[in-house]
Amino acid sequence: MEPLSTARCPLTRQRTEVSLLALHLDAAAPEPLHRQLYAGVRELVLTGRLGRGARLPSSRALADELGVSRNTVLMALEQLASEGYVEGRLGSGSFVPDELPDVAPVRHRRAEARRSGPALSVRGRALAGRGAISVRRQGLLAPGPDTSDFPFELWARLTAKHWRAPDAALVAASDPRGHLALRQAIAEYLRTVRAVHCDAEQVIVVSGARQAVDLCARTLLDPGDGAAVEEPGFAGIRAVLAAAGARLVPVPVDAEGMRVPKSRDKLRLICVAPSHQYPLGVTMSLGRRLDLLARARELGAWIVEDDYDSEFRYAGPPLAALQGLDPDGRVVYIGSFSKILFPSLRLGYLVAPPQAVEDFARARSTLDDHPASAMQPVLADFIAEGHFAQHVRRMRKRYAERQRVLLDAAATELPGLLMLSPDPAGMHLVGELAPSLAKRMDDVTASRRAAKAGHAVPPLSSCYLGVPRRQGLLIGYAATPDDAIAPAVATLAAALA
Amino acid sequence: MEPLSTARCPLTRQRTEVSLLALHLDAAAPEPLHRQLYAGVRELVLTGRLGRGARLPSSRALADELGVSRNTVLMALEQLASEGYVEGRLGSGSFVPDELPDVAPVRHRRAEARRSGPALSVRGRALAGRGAISVRRQGLLAPGPDTSDFPFELWARLTAKHWRAPDAALVAASDPRGHLALRQAIAEYLRTVRAVHCDAEQVIVVSGARQAVDLCARTLLDPGDGAAVEEPGFAGIRAVLAAAGARLVPVPVDAEGMRVPKSRDKLRLICVAPSHQYPLGVTMSLGRRLDLLARARELGAWIVEDDYDSEFRYAGPPLAALQGLDPDGRVVYIGSFSKILFPSLRLGYLVAPPQAVEDFARARSTLDDHPASAMQPVLADFIAEGHFAQHVRRMRKRYAERQRVLLDAAATELPGLLMLSPDPAGMHLVGELAPSLAKRMDDVTASRRAAKAGHAVPPLSSCYLGVPRRQGLLIGYAATPDDAIAPAVATLAAALA
Repeated sequence: MEPLSTARCPLTRQRTEVSLLALHLDAAAPEPLHRQLYAGVRELVLTGRLGRGARLPSSRALADELGVSRNTVLMALEQLASEGYVEGRLGSGSFVPDELPDVAPVRHRRAEARRSGPALSVRGRALAGRGAISVRRQGLLAPGPDTSDFPFELWARLTAKHWRAPDAALVAASDPRGHLALRQAIAEYLRTVRAVHCDAEQVIVVSGARQAVDLCARTLLDPGDGAAVEEPGFAGIRAVLAAAGARLVPVPVDAEGMRVPKSRDKLRLICVAPSHQYPLGVTMSLGRRLDLLARARELGAWIVEDDYDSEFRYAGPPLAALQGLDPDGRVVYIGSFSKILFPSLRLGYLVAPPQAVEDFARARSTLDDHPASAMQPVLADFIAEGHFAQHVRRMRKRYAERQRVLLDAAATELPGLLMLSPDPAGMHLVGELAPSLAKRMDDVTASRRAAKAGHAVPPLSSCYLGVPRRQGLLIGYAATPDDAIAPAVATLAAALA
Repeated sequence: MEPLSTARCPLTRQRTEVSLLALHLDAAAPEPLHRQLYAGVRELVLTGRLGRGARLPSSRALADELGVSRNTVLMALEQLASEGYVEGRLGSGSFVPDELPDVAPVRHRRAEARRSGPALSVRGRALAGRGAISVRRQGLLAPGPDTSDFPFELWARLTAKHWRAPDAALVAASDPRGHLALRQAIAEYLRTVRAVHCDAEQVIVVSGARQAVDLCARTLLDPGDGAAVEEPGFAGIRAVLAAAGARLVPVPVDAEGMRVPKSRDKLRLICVAPSHQYPLGVTMSLGRRLDLLARARELGAWIVEDDYDSEFRYAGPPLAALQGLDPDGRVVYIGSFSKILFPSLRLGYLVAPPQAVEDFARARSTLDDHPASAMQPVLADFIAEGHFAQHVRRMRKRYAERQRVLLDAAATELPGLLMLSPDPAGMHLVGELAPSLAKRMDDVTASRRAAKAGHAVPPLSSCYLGVPRRQGLLIGYAATPDDAIAPAVATLAAALA
């Protein structure tokens, strides 16, 4: 390593580009992008290629130049600033300080701790290894809902109504199942719209599908117990099950949904998304639903029904929830509002069978007391006053149109690259790699190339637990404005061509 | 069981009292009070002792008569209503319906499910068994903060400021560590007030101490690994550790705090509350802190420092946090705002050592994505603008005065019953059973008697993992108005005499 240069060498725009090319940011590497960026800039400072006093471009400009999200840049800059490698207000430009007084001790302490601090447990290493520091990509065609005109003014008004002079029950809330009014609103909604058999007593408010599945896994499974998961399926759910010690049994998805697990599979739990399977978008047939319930009974297994994406259905009536077909009390039904309303809401629910609800509530109180009151009465009003249904209707129309625009653009721009088919529901389409593209690269490479062009389109192969049988990209359309879709698809095509 | 009577038999006040005496509600039984109440009323309905059309007293009157909280009554009534045993709006009086059309099918389904539904796992039964459906007692002398004049108007104004037109980062928040502004405010507060060595990068926002300990246990421990806990100590933390498969090693607390674990104890983690030990209120001496760190180094163990109650210190300066004395990066520091501000806030933090923070952040993202944005920017402002410090100062003065009033009242009313000593910090005092009382009953019986008189004062023995060496009651004073303390102590004395 070269000695630190004390000469000022202001970072010109050209020089930045040269330096940053040297960083080799790699979206598919195990190290997250912000850590790569952090390490790269630190190296530039330590080797003097970024001299003391040198000014860095704004976080926005850096994000543009690197083709990463601004959050990635901000996380990297924050860490660099905390260790004294850069100075200045985040977002308004940073520079390399004239003196680096804190570098040595901080680096020493961190390096020291890596040697002297205890190690993570085996389970902990796996847990951390499975987690992404999932900075949500802000790029075009990224997954996620359109929050651009969510009625936040109304939301804030409802919030003020409840919190200006909250009643004692809201302040001291202690029911591990959550706020009664919200549980009533959820139960009413699920009964009428999803044909779920439930009352408010069975509803437990959680932070999302992950907390719901964690609660199921720890309440219903012992370490080593078998849990069937869809193949391909949502990696997030698999990670939570595995973290709780489940033995994952992948079960292929076909045109009728997840196949029925074999009767010789030793299973205690079957995790399934019958309404709109992630990522393939299949809706499970009625026959398959009944067969699945029968097999679960035969195996003595619980079923966790993740009613993913069921709100955004554009064609045909939704099938009734599996839970509503279950006479045994073996289906735990879970869902989330964060994907429908806005991601940082973090409110979802678990509907326990009547005989198990008290056990679930007690388990929740052990692990996490009760859910925060903050937005529970607000969401309850939002549902009860009809705003929720109105918002879903409005978004459904908008997303349906965007899917059409995406398919049109794909027909023009993507032949020989990606093959897209319509989906009667959801917020993304799978673009399977066309044979001519598949000859040249796998979907991880394709995804990485797309990321460099500013598109966060995850590879389909990341949804497989075993060997991926299909290769493709998951293309979100819900959050991309209509008139931005075709240009985005064009740049995606260019990145893959 | 007698056949159902179809005759109307209105429930007079006297009759209620007779019937409810028959219920034998028992605060110390494993079945929670609301379940006992539910089962008792259902029995009265099924045996015809509560005839069809009979009107029940209001929930408030029932709560008064039974000496339980209104929440308990509401939970019982809700379940009774959901199963068709009572009708009417909750809170405004309920009655036994003329026909019980839903009783049979609902009971059938629930009873059926108990037979046909799968069983909980072994781990799940333990998890549910450890959890209370902890309906927070509203009685006098109950634990918890005074929220009667929390500045909710200001809180609501700050909330509206952030949520009327939230910026994109707040809506799409995705950092598993939480909102940057809040992490900065927490780090600044902990550095200046608690001598914790940290920056915002090390702070992870969690829902409370339970989620923090769960994250530590699952990241740092493998099933069967030893975890030292204080004896006596907080049962909630022990339950979380046990639920994650830890082998609990109780370590006695003496006048200097938790003793140093033995070097032959195989420990991977030591869980300790040095600032103000729960429930005994001991502050760990500096010498003991250094010895504990040395032993942890020798054992290669992590330390989880629960900085419980450190904000409310009435005499003497607080000792610096253990974390600030740790050169190795082996201390994880945790704390919560919910006990300081209001219980349903559910915001706390974990400060990870620098070398481990990324692993913790990834583990959190696996298990629970990221914390809800709702109140994070609000709390950040509340701290940064000085309202937090002001509220703590105001409450500190108030709680100090209430502890004095409680000690005065105890000196008059409780000789021969309970022995209380001043505590330089905290929100409760331990009233040890005087020898003459201890001859007549144990603290579980004493707590049950107190509950019947309207006081939620948990038994000290419930804080022991092994055989309780001391018997007493935990008497909260923070939330009891000054002029209500002496009368409350008088009724407590009467209940125990």
